[in-house]
Amino acid sequence: MTMAFEIFETRERALADNAAAAELTRANLRAHGARLVNLMGSPGAGKTSLLLRLIEALKPLRVGVMEADVDSDVDARTVARTGAKVIQLHTAGLCHMDADMTRRGLERLGLDGLDVVFLENIGNLVCPAEFEVGADLRLVVLSVPEGDDKPLKYPLMFRVADCLAVNKLDALPAFDFDLDALRARAAALRPEAPVFPLSAKTGEGVDALAGWLKARLGGEAT
Amino acid sequence: MTMAFEIFETRERALADNAAAAELTRANLRAHGARLVNLMGSPGAGKTSLLLRLIEALKPLRVGVMEADVDSDVDARTVARTGAKVIQLHTAGLCHMDADMTRRGLERLGLDGLDVVFLENIGNLVCPAEFEVGADLRLVVLSVPEGDDKPLKYPLMFRVADCLAVNKLDALPAFDFDLDALRARAAALRPEAPVFPLSAKTGEGVDALAGWLKARLGGEAT
Repeated sequence: MTMAFEIFETRERALADNAAAAELTRANLRAHGARLVNLMGSPGAGKTSLLLRLIEALKPLRVGVMEADVDSDVDARTVARTGAKVIQLHTAGLCHMDADMTRRGLERLGLDGLDVVFLENIGNLVCPAEFEVGADLRLVVLSVPEGDDKPLKYPLMFRVADCLAVNKLDALPAFDFDLDALRARAAALRPEAPVFPLSAKTGEGVDALAGWLKARLGGEAT
Repeated sequence: MTMAFEIFETRERALADNAAAAELTRANLRAHGARLVNLMGSPGAGKTSLLLRLIEALKPLRVGVMEADVDSDVDARTVARTGAKVIQLHTAGLCHMDADMTRRGLERLGLDGLDVVFLENIGNLVCPAEFEVGADLRLVVLSVPEGDDKPLKYPLMFRVADCLAVNKLDALPAFDFDLDALRARAAALRPEAPVFPLSAKTGEGVDALAGWLKARLGGEAT
């Protein structure tokens, strides 16, 4: 009992500090004319693979990437091969990126010459949903093998999603995944968020998501 | 900076309280001659599906289940259909089960007439690894579609795993998943933990895991 109470108290204070840090990030982004996308999803949902596709598909927008990981630099090395500007952020065990870590990451990355920065958050459907980072847009990736029931079980993530990518569509025949059920469950939590079924592996459906992102990030003619 | 510091301070105190609660749970389990398994893995890894198989395969051991979820009772309803004793625990947004929530859950479930209790933790490869709950055994489920690189990115979870189930083996042909690479990466973190490739969908490989669990939980002749 005691412990749960302590956690919640800390959480409230932390969330207030977090909101202040997010505001600093928004001002920094405005000053540089850049946009920030908070990319979230389960471990193995295919966030990095989708990002590799989007770096190409969003051109001529110049994309920078912050790879947040508990440990390792596997994803940052993969992204670096595309030629995109990338830095690795280590959260030292923390299960989400908060606004202050994001703010410092953006300072380190540097916004000059970038139109859009993707923060690839820690693979986690719970904690990252609770911490705004000052992003213009929250892109959530769910993959077919995870199942169509995830909005029921992790509702906050689907409530904060501005846009939902349903990845690994190529694997649909191998799984009992009801795309219509998923759409209905996601829409119940956030009716206005579009759903993009796609495969980062084959590239199918990526252009539709990229087109929507371009329009939303206001970079059609950059 | 301030915020990160606060989080870490709280975490240390919380972890000390947590260890004390875990000790109470161990004493409670000993008094009833029951064992507790902490079942962890990503969202959609197939924890519940595997559990359904294990409830059958572990017979004559009498299995009870605590289904921890941020929200919903989908999994508890599924498990209840097997006839196993089950309760649903709602973590109200928390991303992991801690020892005190587990202790209170076990009190509510009641240990009489049970040999083994499975705590199905929140789907999350990060936070649950940090909180011991007083379990005798930590069973981690990784699924093929998540990728063989997960031990590199979420090392703590694989370091605390007493046993690793690699689920959705039936989907292996559809994914670039290197089972040998996974084994090597897992072994680098916890050499003594056995790895059981299996499919909760087809049942393949479940008996090997169940046999190992029976031996470890000392219930061969119960």
